[in-house]
Amino acid sequence: MKGYMGKILRVDLTKGRVETEKLDENLAKKFIGGSGLATKILYDETGPETDTLGPENRLIFMTGPFAATPVITSGRHHMVSKSPLTGAYTESDTGGTWGPFLKRAGFDGIVVSGKANKPVYLWVSDGKAEIRDASRFWGMDTYDLDEAIRKDTRPEAVVASIGPAGEKGVRYASILNDGREARAAGRGGTGAVMGSKNLKAIAVHGKMEVEIADPEGLRASLKEISPMVAKNTEGMRKNGTAGGLATFEALGSLPLQNWKFQGRWEQGAAKIAGPAMTEKILTGNYFCEKCVIGCGRRVKVDKGPFAPVEGAGPEYESVAMLGSLCLVDDIEAIAKANEICNRYGMDTISAGAAIAFAMEAYEKGIITKKDTGELELLWGRGDVMVKMTEKIGKREGLGQLLGEGVRIAAEKLGKNAVEFSLHVKGQEVPAHDPRCFNAGAVGYATINRGACHLGFSHVFERVLSMPEIGIDQPLPRLEVKGKGEAAAKTQNIMGLFDSLKLCKFTMFGGLKMTPILAWYNMVTGLSVTMDEFLKTGERIFNLKRMYNVRCGISRKDDTLPSRFLSLKHEGEGLNPNLPPLGELLYDYYKFRGWNEEGIPTPEKLKELGL
Amino acid sequence: MKGYMGKILRVDLTKGRVETEKLDENLAKKFIGGSGLATKILYDETGPETDTLGPENRLIFMTGPFAATPVITSGRHHMVSKSPLTGAYTESDTGGTWGPFLKRAGFDGIVVSGKANKPVYLWVSDGKAEIRDASRFWGMDTYDLDEAIRKDTRPEAVVASIGPAGEKGVRYASILNDGREARAAGRGGTGAVMGSKNLKAIAVHGKMEVEIADPEGLRASLKEISPMVAKNTEGMRKNGTAGGLATFEALGSLPLQNWKFQGRWEQGAAKIAGPAMTEKILTGNYFCEKCVIGCGRRVKVDKGPFAPVEGAGPEYESVAMLGSLCLVDDIEAIAKANEICNRYGMDTISAGAAIAFAMEAYEKGIITKKDTGELELLWGRGDVMVKMTEKIGKREGLGQLLGEGVRIAAEKLGKNAVEFSLHVKGQEVPAHDPRCFNAGAVGYATINRGACHLGFSHVFERVLSMPEIGIDQPLPRLEVKGKGEAAAKTQNIMGLFDSLKLCKFTMFGGLKMTPILAWYNMVTGLSVTMDEFLKTGERIFNLKRMYNVRCGISRKDDTLPSRFLSLKHEGEGLNPNLPPLGELLYDYYKFRGWNEEGIPTPEKLKELGL
Repeated sequence: MKGYMGKILRVDLTKGRVETEKLDENLAKKFIGGSGLATKILYDETGPETDTLGPENRLIFMTGPFAATPVITSGRHHMVSKSPLTGAYTESDTGGTWGPFLKRAGFDGIVVSGKANKPVYLWVSDGKAEIRDASRFWGMDTYDLDEAIRKDTRPEAVVASIGPAGEKGVRYASILNDGREARAAGRGGTGAVMGSKNLKAIAVHGKMEVEIADPEGLRASLKEISPMVAKNTEGMRKNGTAGGLATFEALGSLPLQNWKFQGRWEQGAAKIAGPAMTEKILTGNYFCEKCVIGCGRRVKVDKGPFAPVEGAGPEYESVAMLGSLCLVDDIEAIAKANEICNRYGMDTISAGAAIAFAMEAYEKGIITKKDTGELELLWGRGDVMVKMTEKIGKREGLGQLLGEGVRIAAEKLGKNAVEFSLHVKGQEVPAHDPRCFNAGAVGYATINRGACHLGFSHVFERVLSMPEIGIDQPLPRLEVKGKGEAAAKTQNIMGLFDSLKLCKFTMFGGLKMTPILAWYNMVTGLSVTMDEFLKTGERIFNLKRMYNVRCGISRKDDTLPSRFLSLKHEGEGLNPNLPPLGELLYDYYKFRGWNEEGIPTPEKLKELGL
Repeated sequence: MKGYMGKILRVDLTKGRVETEKLDENLAKKFIGGSGLATKILYDETGPETDTLGPENRLIFMTGPFAATPVITSGRHHMVSKSPLTGAYTESDTGGTWGPFLKRAGFDGIVVSGKANKPVYLWVSDGKAEIRDASRFWGMDTYDLDEAIRKDTRPEAVVASIGPAGEKGVRYASILNDGREARAAGRGGTGAVMGSKNLKAIAVHGKMEVEIADPEGLRASLKEISPMVAKNTEGMRKNGTAGGLATFEALGSLPLQNWKFQGRWEQGAAKIAGPAMTEKILTGNYFCEKCVIGCGRRVKVDKGPFAPVEGAGPEYESVAMLGSLCLVDDIEAIAKANEICNRYGMDTISAGAAIAFAMEAYEKGIITKKDTGELELLWGRGDVMVKMTEKIGKREGLGQLLGEGVRIAAEKLGKNAVEFSLHVKGQEVPAHDPRCFNAGAVGYATINRGACHLGFSHVFERVLSMPEIGIDQPLPRLEVKGKGEAAAKTQNIMGLFDSLKLCKFTMFGGLKMTPILAWYNMVTGLSVTMDEFLKTGERIFNLKRMYNVRCGISRKDDTLPSRFLSLKHEGEGLNPNLPPLGELLYDYYKFRGWNEEGIPTPEKLKELGL
């Protein structure tokens, strides 16, 4: 089977040993790569008893068949582990160039286990891998480290690494790659897992090539489709992913004041949206490998209280979570906090959520100046938001607590903090209000890694269609009927994107499943039908669910924070909604072939070959 | 102020001391009596730190102004405590004759604190009280004890007591009175509190009279209204409260198979409904003091596997919970289990729920024959249901676990047992399906003692009207609009019934709030307006909520078991519904003047004088 390097790198840090393992082609057929294949490995090698920050946890880096091929937006790779944030399944992915260069170095993926007895990094190049001492790099931030490791290996190497947050076990620590063109695998705390293993970085480089079954066919198809994707995503190229922020505000979907804000926030939104960023701090944009969209923001702030900032700018989630969620309307403060998150290596979504949570706790008197180190933790205070971001990265003062994530922080604070601790399964809610999207709501409630916007269902309730799964036109947002089914189907195809490793933004460019399947067949030489392809997406989703079921996850965890179920966001021109989650889940489970406890039936598992 | 004896008996069992305290008239005006007044005492004297089974907990017995007056159905009294089942507020009430005789003995209520160093009972008669040794009665069941204590005091004494379940700390142990005409204060585990204090019984007797401000007016009004109530409740007199069981089945409201049954159960329902009981085992009916309804069932089973049964028969909740919930369709088995619950002193609702929970756990393999002592814990097995009831009463084998209630039992069992552990705030769900009644659903979710059918809202969605609170005709069951408000308003008037101590079944007799208020004014001599009266109901409800808020209860606890939110009960002729709880709660909180966390606002508390 083409499209793969055929090798998985096994790294046992306890033993200080690296080994090469042959890729099991049957598994690759069944689970494709990326998310699917990595999940299968995690499923087989860890379980409920696995300590997420113990040596027995796995941290799995996995590319898909598209990496290092000409397929557009194929610069992505996937990380899968058991999450210290949720105690269950997690996955996170990122773009840039690391994935393709791992393949060019000769490997489809890396499975890290064990724990080194001192800080190390891994250097993978030209078919070989080496564990190297990283004691002198420990404590470095990801930007500085990128330079240092490239100096220690080679200048063209691509580095994925953790910052101080990952070292210190911030439960939503991220793994970043590509230096100042920071690409972050933020969610679920894979960075903390990496830190717990004393693994500071993985640098990759190589010049091997991946074989493609039908390079001519692929080239022809890409030639036809790439310009369409590029053209349809012009807005994203110009104003980044935050280009539509004002639209979200008008829809009531922008997160505001830890999701409790009433009314409209037009002026604030205008000050932090993509166009404002473009006007005020943008110096250019950048692309992941093979990307035709170019959403990456290059920004610079060289004066004022938040200088210096230089490098990757905040994307939509970061702007919203560090900004509007805290009622901060200062794009420079947001850019600064974003850079701190990148340098320290932590998820902007969870960090922003933790700060907004703390602001609400401060407002309610549950935490006081004594806890904040005299900081006035008030809504809208950009300077304070930036300071708190840094405190989390350093796990200093209140940052110690907030680095646990809002679920644990609320439990530790007690009182009624749990009421405004907004997460699903322990993962903080990202920047799309589930009250605005009924399929999005049941999607958030059921996605395996916890609250997650990349489950993506809500986008099909606004702008996207996907005829291959029966969504011929965008679904009405507040309709209930059919939304359980729509959520399940879109989750399944997201699993395909995550396993092939293809950027989901291509859908905004008009890309559909039919050409994607064609590319998959052209790359691999397989003759997979659309039915089989969609079934694979379903298989992957169900395998993750089964991992979670083993970890004790069931219907009780498929829920939304109560704020989304019982507080309407009212405001001029808004159409306040509370998602009827029970009804939605009923349809969802029924369509999924799960029982009422949310557990896949034996028949369903058999049907999927699980 | 008339209608009261003006005295509260204080019993400190640690010190072995009884004291008489003057009733505070201002408090009596503000909280009436019964539930309201007892709650105020609990609120002032206990709190979040109170160990429910420790000496510092209070067990408060309280009558209302109607007891020992000619007001119909005024034989009731109330018990309030901090619940060992829920860890929060609880209350339970019962009929019979104990309350009026407490008043005739000279006291409006009894506040028990402390813990006796050996079993004792309290003898209250003719204005005096005495703590007596009960060592020789410890271990006795309530039927035998009733005779023994009356022998030890006087034959006309009325005894409220606990059985072995209360002694052994079954978390839903009840307090029963009136011997074989068993009247049970079942819910919330007040019997376990009594047991924890080493208090086996309270016997009361006396001949004092309560003064009435306008006895003539009262008599005239009662003469007019009593016949109406009597006439409209003929069905209840004939077939008891289970008379309507088949109707509930047809509506989909009858609990079946731990609430997961799909389809219809007409034949089973017919075999256990009131008419079948009348035909098979009824020997007569009986009345509480001043009752014109006579729902009490006197039954006898003198042959077959469940003989002997003699005395009080099961009312609707008991039939449904010990019967249909376990798919048991044998009325003699149910009558036997009911008698065991009465003798051992435990709540039939929670006991039935615990057994059904165990049957489902057995079905799912979470418990096995090893746990059940080789019992085949199968749906529909009346003999096994009866044996399990006894095991719980004795806290023997699996009964030890089930005596903890389904919340704790599920936590201890682990696996996915929590998914089918059906309770609200720790209290088992009674026998009216909240999926059938949207106001009922939000009512269950918010009633202060946890899941509770005596919050009663659902009855206004089927048969009852109450113009004084704007419900001119029964509300459509599955309508959503206005149901949050309806639930709140009906909860408020239930607080009035519970504080006046008036039987709620009078509403089936057509009794409305206007004559009730008139009676209250005639008895007390006050000139309370309807607005003030309803406000008092609201005040009482909010005081209970504030007690719970102090115990950590908030929005997060105002929910329903997931089965009711995401599993439809489908069947021929049924109209499957899942209550949109978020929407309902939103309206409910708004109407209540509570914030989104379910906490009464300072303005609301001020308005209510709290």
